[in-house]
Amino acid sequence: MSTPSEAAPKSAGKLQFTLKTPKGTKDWADKDMVIREAIFGQLSSLFKRHGGITLDTPVFELREILAGKYGEDSKLIYNLEDQGGELGSLRYDLTVPFARYVAMNNIQSIKRYHIAKVYRRDQPAMTKGRMREFYQCDFDVAGTYESMVPDAEVLSILVEGLTSLGIKDFKIKMNHRKILDGLFQIAGVKDEDVRKISSAVDKLDKAPWEVVRKEITVEKGQTEETADIIGEYVKLNGSLQTVHDILANDKVFQANEKAVEGLKEIETLISYVNAFGIQDYISFDLSLARGLDYYTGIIFEAVTAASAPPKNASELKEKSKKQKKDDDDASEYVGVGSIVAGGRYDNLVNMFAEASGKKSTSIPCVGVSFGVERIFSLIKQRAEQNNNVRPTATQVFVMAFGGGKDWTGYLPERMKVAKKLWENGIETEYVYKSKANPRKQFDAADKSGCPLAVILGKEEYLENKLRVKRLGPEFANDDGELIDAADLIEVVKEKLSQVHEDGVDEVTRLLKGL
Amino acid sequence: MSTPSEAAPKSAGKLQFTLKTPKGTKDWADKDMVIREAIFGQLSSLFKRHGGITLDTPVFELREILAGKYGEDSKLIYNLEDQGGELGSLRYDLTVPFARYVAMNNIQSIKRYHIAKVYRRDQPAMTKGRMREFYQCDFDVAGTYESMVPDAEVLSILVEGLTSLGIKDFKIKMNHRKILDGLFQIAGVKDEDVRKISSAVDKLDKAPWEVVRKEITVEKGQTEETADIIGEYVKLNGSLQTVHDILANDKVFQANEKAVEGLKEIETLISYVNAFGIQDYISFDLSLARGLDYYTGIIFEAVTAASAPPKNASELKEKSKKQKKDDDDASEYVGVGSIVAGGRYDNLVNMFAEASGKKSTSIPCVGVSFGVERIFSLIKQRAEQNNNVRPTATQVFVMAFGGGKDWTGYLPERMKVAKKLWENGIETEYVYKSKANPRKQFDAADKSGCPLAVILGKEEYLENKLRVKRLGPEFANDDGELIDAADLIEVVKEKLSQVHEDGVDEVTRLLKGL
Repeated sequence: MSTPSEAAPKSAGKLQFTLKTPKGTKDWADKDMVIREAIFGQLSSLFKRHGGITLDTPVFELREILAGKYGEDSKLIYNLEDQGGELGSLRYDLTVPFARYVAMNNIQSIKRYHIAKVYRRDQPAMTKGRMREFYQCDFDVAGTYESMVPDAEVLSILVEGLTSLGIKDFKIKMNHRKILDGLFQIAGVKDEDVRKISSAVDKLDKAPWEVVRKEITVEKGQTEETADIIGEYVKLNGSLQTVHDILANDKVFQANEKAVEGLKEIETLISYVNAFGIQDYISFDLSLARGLDYYTGIIFEAVTAASAPPKNASELKEKSKKQKKDDDDASEYVGVGSIVAGGRYDNLVNMFAEASGKKSTSIPCVGVSFGVERIFSLIKQRAEQNNNVRPTATQVFVMAFGGGKDWTGYLPERMKVAKKLWENGIETEYVYKSKANPRKQFDAADKSGCPLAVILGKEEYLENKLRVKRLGPEFANDDGELIDAADLIEVVKEKLSQVHEDGVDEVTRLLKGL
Repeated sequence: MSTPSEAAPKSAGKLQFTLKTPKGTKDWADKDMVIREAIFGQLSSLFKRHGGITLDTPVFELREILAGKYGEDSKLIYNLEDQGGELGSLRYDLTVPFARYVAMNNIQSIKRYHIAKVYRRDQPAMTKGRMREFYQCDFDVAGTYESMVPDAEVLSILVEGLTSLGIKDFKIKMNHRKILDGLFQIAGVKDEDVRKISSAVDKLDKAPWEVVRKEITVEKGQTEETADIIGEYVKLNGSLQTVHDILANDKVFQANEKAVEGLKEIETLISYVNAFGIQDYISFDLSLARGLDYYTGIIFEAVTAASAPPKNASELKEKSKKQKKDDDDASEYVGVGSIVAGGRYDNLVNMFAEASGKKSTSIPCVGVSFGVERIFSLIKQRAEQNNNVRPTATQVFVMAFGGGKDWTGYLPERMKVAKKLWENGIETEYVYKSKANPRKQFDAADKSGCPLAVILGKEEYLENKLRVKRLGPEFANDDGELIDAADLIEVVKEKLSQVHEDGVDEVTRLLKGL
């Protein structure tokens, strides 16, 4: 049999390596996994509620599909090694694969959701939920519809999603690419510089205006005057209506065609978000830019108190840098960032259609993406005090009690009883041992946290009798009920329905923030 | 905005490429996705029923973790490009990451399940469900237990899994690595040659004995006599008891310590599979070898009629080769192969523990892996005739009827009604259009296949009334029921419960093979 040592240089003897997962990735297990699966369940129900169908694309795409979609962040794409054949890269988000799918299959309209992992070679900050491999939960609407109608529904999905996960204290920062592009024009930024100035402005949630201003002027070569005009606009924020009204009365702004077009869409959006009753969550914030190249209309991201860096972030960062070499830790003091994000991207599908020589067809899209790991870390904090989430779903433990020389331990008999319970859909375990003493069997049941025991007594079993007993400290002195083996399923089902009548299960309680 | 053309050589003008997914991968969507998700649901319930907890490991591992685990198949591993930092490879199965997890966390015992994608740069045969990216659904038991007890449960899981998916006509081919190693010793194969001879024998499900014999003698340098002894043993197959009895009376076999050890375990296993009532599914087949290096005890795989290559496979292959250059098609005539597989691997965890300098601890493991894509292609055949599976879960379509000059189309009003339904957990859609005519709204509802409409009549709505109507051809002349808007949720829930009382839903019907 070949062993890992074969892979080592012959002279080195046994290969030695540290057991770990690659940087920025982790294993998910036990209670964390149960909580995360419950979050996925909640979000996929939400997406189905809005008529979504689900799509699963490969984890890697042909490299050319991802090229030119992510601006400065393209350097964060993971490439597959050239092993002969096609060149591939791990997907960076779920949006580009979705657009590729829509273009490839000539789809005219679709509402799809996709819950899957994406990959970014970014600086990880594990405790804040920023990873190199992480899940996105996306809902996107593709198709030509009346202005702002799907956009409003996508915003409603954002609000319904977060509130259903017990997150109520959040704000949706919103802006519009056309408004942003318009104000860059007003400030005198050349068309070819717009995206790089936009990505400088995008840093305003992490850095003060002076730092960004310096980037715009010194690093990115704009005039002081240009920077000052940008500075005046990007400090505007407030309700959609308030900021709308300010811009509607700004003569300079109103003279820019693109900006006015964007503002008109915001006006339409206002009546729809009012219909959904979600207007109070939204803050119109002209400093929001979002890095991705493909957005063309509204852009938004949801932030919570935990999204912001702590007040003493830079101090902590310095301290951490002095103490440790590993800058993973230094980057942890930036807050979790946005927990949901999205926007409209009307040209991405067409970009694929054209690049592949298909007839140019505009398929406008708008979508929202939930960052589950970040949401998870918020919910996990809730669980720190009161975490009774069980990692298994086991409901019944099958045990056998007996003794004496002739005592076989009833292992095949326990297997038969377990099989009957499994066949009836009941989660069942037993100890993998011929002769297990009662203590060990109770301990194993306790460890799993399961509520019921079915006991094969040495003599009772020979008379076709089984004992069904509630588990847990409050039933320590309860001997349970002796029943006919034939009634097993009926009795177990009834007792389990009593158990679960008692209350909401722990995961639901946790998700809802109860 | 940057476009894909930026990635092209400057001289080439616009970048042109074909829109497709990488070779051996595909998009999953619509009904296929609904069916596959239902299969996952069925299997994860099964795994939970057996006390499994779920684990999620990264899609790529450090390269050294995968080294030396897969024998000749190691060449099929996908590597990530060296972009600075660690070297990674996509996981080849879920077993090695599981063993790494157990060793890394010093876990003494665990039952875990994992449903996730794995990656193999193999020759794809898409229509038969053989892909380069595919799902595995694994259940594994790690820990030191009495001989064959978890092994028997894992086999029971295999049987429960397939029968719950309406697959009843299958056979579990089973062998034991110790028996196989023993008979190679008997035949005079040197220890260092065992794995390569084993992998030759493994081809017996696809090739006749003469071909394998030639590989053993000519290619792999064994004597004619050695080949003949192997040939005598590998043709043995039958029930566990039958083959056990033959080997128990074979004096040469009984003289080999390793072989006897293996046979003793089979003897123990027999009483447990009898307790589970699954003995008739199992065929003890000495020709089963399985390619992977890490197995140490029982090995098994489940096959169906569709697993075998068609009788005229070689003919079809030749024909296809002549017609097309693409050998994807030529390799399609080999049958789907095994649909479930697994076995015992007692040294893998320890191999990791030792390689990482931890104290050597034996954590024996046994597991089973369902090949969902292959199972899917079997179930899909069932669906060809009668496929009424709906891609969406939509239950209610909200519509508005009206007309005249002052008619607004009630879009924000429809949104309000939809929001109320969403908040009550009811899957709801409406047409994304201010003024949609009734025909278009009915067509959209029909297309989704949803059973109920809630209609806002121009005048009725002003009187706080809504109309609730069943959809579908048999209700074409039914005007529905006019209700108070306040009673909406109650009425809709009641009508939906009537709809779903009518019968089993289509996915369940399909999975159960009804």
